[in-house]
Amino acid sequence: MVGPEIERLIQLLARLPGLGPRSARRAALKLLERRETLMEPLARAMTDAAARVAPCRLCGNFDTVDPCAICADPRRDPTLLCVVEDVAALWAMERTGSFRGRYIVLGGLLSALDGLGPEDLGIDRLIERAAAPDLAEVILALPATVEGQTTAHYLAERLAGGRAAVFGLAQGVPIGGDLDHLDDGTITAALRARRRV
Amino acid sequence: MVGPEIERLIQLLARLPGLGPRSARRAALKLLERRETLMEPLARAMTDAAARVAPCRLCGNFDTVDPCAICADPRRDPTLLCVVEDVAALWAMERTGSFRGRYIVLGGLLSALDGLGPEDLGIDRLIERAAAPDLAEVILALPATVEGQTTAHYLAERLAGGRAAVFGLAQGVPIGGDLDHLDDGTITAALRARRRV
Repeated sequence: MVGPEIERLIQLLARLPGLGPRSARRAALKLLERRETLMEPLARAMTDAAARVAPCRLCGNFDTVDPCAICADPRRDPTLLCVVEDVAALWAMERTGSFRGRYIVLGGLLSALDGLGPEDLGIDRLIERAAAPDLAEVILALPATVEGQTTAHYLAERLAGGRAAVFGLAQGVPIGGDLDHLDDGTITAALRARRRV
Repeated sequence: MVGPEIERLIQLLARLPGLGPRSARRAALKLLERRETLMEPLARAMTDAAARVAPCRLCGNFDTVDPCAICADPRRDPTLLCVVEDVAALWAMERTGSFRGRYIVLGGLLSALDGLGPEDLGIDRLIERAAAPDLAEVILALPATVEGQTTAHYLAERLAGGRAAVFGLAQGVPIGGDLDHLDDGTITAALRARRRV
């Protein structure tokens, strides 16, 4: 009952994270209702991004320049390298404004279930970067999940014996975290890593 | 820290219903990761829809032809006219497959709060359609909200005395509805409209 053009629009929108079939339909309607103020600008923004944005060949971040603005920024500390799962994690780190080094994006985590091994994650590229003479620290900013920690362990082993020291993020109670609402694993980790005050 | 192209993409995506700032960021990343299989096809689908899909001048439905496929379909019952709030409601009616007449889309509801009066909703067009000699029934398929029912009352008054009989949708317990989870208003309405079994 909906024409093929609208059907195709709905199907493609439904593949975006956060949109199911129902909300994709609502999104398609809003786009059709706001053709000039939303649908056409969004189509142009996508065409523009598709033409101009690409992964940085050094770190994997998305940018219109290659190397990306972070890799090319001379004010970045060359002694620090932060390993993240994906560009979303890189952006999350950048939003904090508390890391002034550079990054490497793995593009995934080791996963027996998904059949992802070290060769799929560009780990050779990481090992090569980690051998840079001015590098002092590799920070494994990987998720505190089984796959994240498996990957971190694997990387720590591969990087052991290199010149850079290898770090992981601290685990513990999140800021504003109420013990009653935290999972047991987090509380256990925070207790184990207790600090003298 | 994110370039202006990506920032603009995120901001436009955040205006879609169902996507907040956070999920718009995730959606932008997924689009950038799936450039050829998702971002470019979606940009084309939008450009295509913007160029080809327009509101039907008779009923307000979206289609690539004008009048739309429903208005132009000779198998549709010309004695039935269904009044809906928007195209989303028209699509919902069509999905049921239980209505074989034609539609008119109001494009909103009477709302003192939003300053929407009868002249904003194309109600003259509806009154004109309702005067068609072969029309027997006007069905006001408007939401069971204060604004929906205010609009239905207003339309019923305007249409009173015409040749077509005016109907509203039945109100009551939804199919699968468990009394314990229904609001008081629905239960009261269902009780008032009780039917002998």
